[in-house]
Amino acid sequence: MKKLINVPESVLAESLDGFAAAHSDLVTLGEERKFVRRARLTPGKVALVSGGGSGHEPLHAGFVGHGMLDAACPGQVFTSPTPDQMMAAAEAVDGGAGILFIVKNYEGDVMNFDMAREMETGRTTEAVLVDDDVAVEVSTFSNGRRGVAGTVVVEKIVGAAAERGDDLAACRALGERVNKATRSMGVALTSCTVPAAGKPTFQLADDEIEIGVGIHGEPGRRRAKHSNADTLAQDMVTAILDDLAGSGSAPGSALLLVNGFGGTPLMELYVMYHAARAQMEARGVTVVRSLVGNYVTSLDMAGCSLTVTALDTEMAALWDATVHTPALRWGI
Amino acid sequence: MKKLINVPESVLAESLDGFAAAHSDLVTLGEERKFVRRARLTPGKVALVSGGGSGHEPLHAGFVGHGMLDAACPGQVFTSPTPDQMMAAAEAVDGGAGILFIVKNYEGDVMNFDMAREMETGRTTEAVLVDDDVAVEVSTFSNGRRGVAGTVVVEKIVGAAAERGDDLAACRALGERVNKATRSMGVALTSCTVPAAGKPTFQLADDEIEIGVGIHGEPGRRRAKHSNADTLAQDMVTAILDDLAGSGSAPGSALLLVNGFGGTPLMELYVMYHAARAQMEARGVTVVRSLVGNYVTSLDMAGCSLTVTALDTEMAALWDATVHTPALRWGI
Repeated sequence: MKKLINVPESVLAESLDGFAAAHSDLVTLGEERKFVRRARLTPGKVALVSGGGSGHEPLHAGFVGHGMLDAACPGQVFTSPTPDQMMAAAEAVDGGAGILFIVKNYEGDVMNFDMAREMETGRTTEAVLVDDDVAVEVSTFSNGRRGVAGTVVVEKIVGAAAERGDDLAACRALGERVNKATRSMGVALTSCTVPAAGKPTFQLADDEIEIGVGIHGEPGRRRAKHSNADTLAQDMVTAILDDLAGSGSAPGSALLLVNGFGGTPLMELYVMYHAARAQMEARGVTVVRSLVGNYVTSLDMAGCSLTVTALDTEMAALWDATVHTPALRWGI
Repeated sequence: MKKLINVPESVLAESLDGFAAAHSDLVTLGEERKFVRRARLTPGKVALVSGGGSGHEPLHAGFVGHGMLDAACPGQVFTSPTPDQMMAAAEAVDGGAGILFIVKNYEGDVMNFDMAREMETGRTTEAVLVDDDVAVEVSTFSNGRRGVAGTVVVEKIVGAAAERGDDLAACRALGERVNKATRSMGVALTSCTVPAAGKPTFQLADDEIEIGVGIHGEPGRRRAKHSNADTLAQDMVTAILDDLAGSGSAPGSALLLVNGFGGTPLMELYVMYHAARAQMEARGVTVVRSLVGNYVTSLDMAGCSLTVTALDTEMAALWDATVHTPALRWGI
């Protein structure tokens, strides 16, 4: 294992300290590194708190800032944060309008966020569960579908709604609506290597790929011989659009997110975007919003995921709203 | 070789088509894909044109937009664009105040930009040469030092000056000033693989790194056993700050750019940022501006470079000025 680290035990702490120092204009690191929160809070606003295992950077801490999250709780690599972290984050960012937890559907995360909510007797909390991955129905760490790159779309759109003053119930309902309109699927060309493990999580032959891989390297639908970008895009777009159609959410206009897993260069992500967009257009879907880059990664895994959100007018406007975070910035 | 591509011959075209489609609000692809230019031009402004071999994305096309480049010419992977591309780009973005070419110091680029300037008899052109890499004095593709990640700093600061109305001579002088105040050094943990070659450019053992590597995988100062982030940061920061001090540019306040080469996760880049910043502070340098991410990549190479710019007040203000490009956005 060759990594730009000191020892596995200190990776998270050093990375968080570096992150907080590099973005001190936007974020503040909480005591004992329990959470990252906005440097400037807005009283009276619904506070959005997310979190999960580390190793998916910039998710979630990279999305803390105006128009998106108020705080994010980083667990150890691929390990849920603790209820203690979530409660500390909620306390730090509570603006009096309630807390909305955004939770990816993994057993550890669900259990710990539930526990935090149960213990938060003095605060009004709600939760949105993200489960956008169409690859498999049950996985290594999840009952039901996994929450993957669609989380960015949920956090962005609900973040904009909270920023404009929507109340807690409205933010939760919107989060559920966005999640229902969002589907993802990934493909791995290589495994990732967890620093503490020191060796690849799984093995792929030189000509082999994992179709439907999870963001921790969980098995997907099948191993296959590696083909090419067009074939992969067709497989993944078909799985995504069929699933959306099956649940009555067939999109006319859509957001397309091509998300790199950390080890794949941008040049290839744009090739995949080009291929996926063509597949969507061939199925009558117009891509009206786009995002291409490394947003929900799996350490150093090579590969990517595609995420499609069926956009309505309100969701498109909230997507366009100003966002100012370390990893996502636009609008005036 | 496993890559998210169709065939090596079409990687660049498909990637550019995807890029232009994903960012059609900001950029337009020129005829025959000779260049990427801003969707909206500003008459009367000095036009900044850069370019170089592809495979370093988001450099250069990702930096086309308000506050940075007016156009970028993409060559084939690791191959200079042609004079024909540069002339077409200059014609497309000429606002009547002259053209400033920003050129990384590689023989092919220098020759072709020179040729374009000689053939541009009807247009006023100047050029800034970027040669920020302290690793070696002569390299595989360059006489003199290589131009690497410091190019982003030059393009950002000069782009802001052009946007505020500085004339051609002032923009060129500023570009030279920024280049003189900027030093970089890189380290590779793995090779990159050029799609058309189909195999790694060079070989490193499982415990070996290349210190001072170039952005095409050119040899650096030495092969070494891989140590850890702190040791690497100390080596690189020492080389950079000694070199700046030797030329009379020892910084009090500095910009620190930690640039990933494409295959290294953000988590590790923040560990390196943390380590490098500590080294700089130990040498009495205050880090006042920061950038961490994949900006000047080498396809799928794992590793990173550090870039330090000794900032004066004007340069810091220009760094802070609004920028709105696919890969770099901030300011209101």
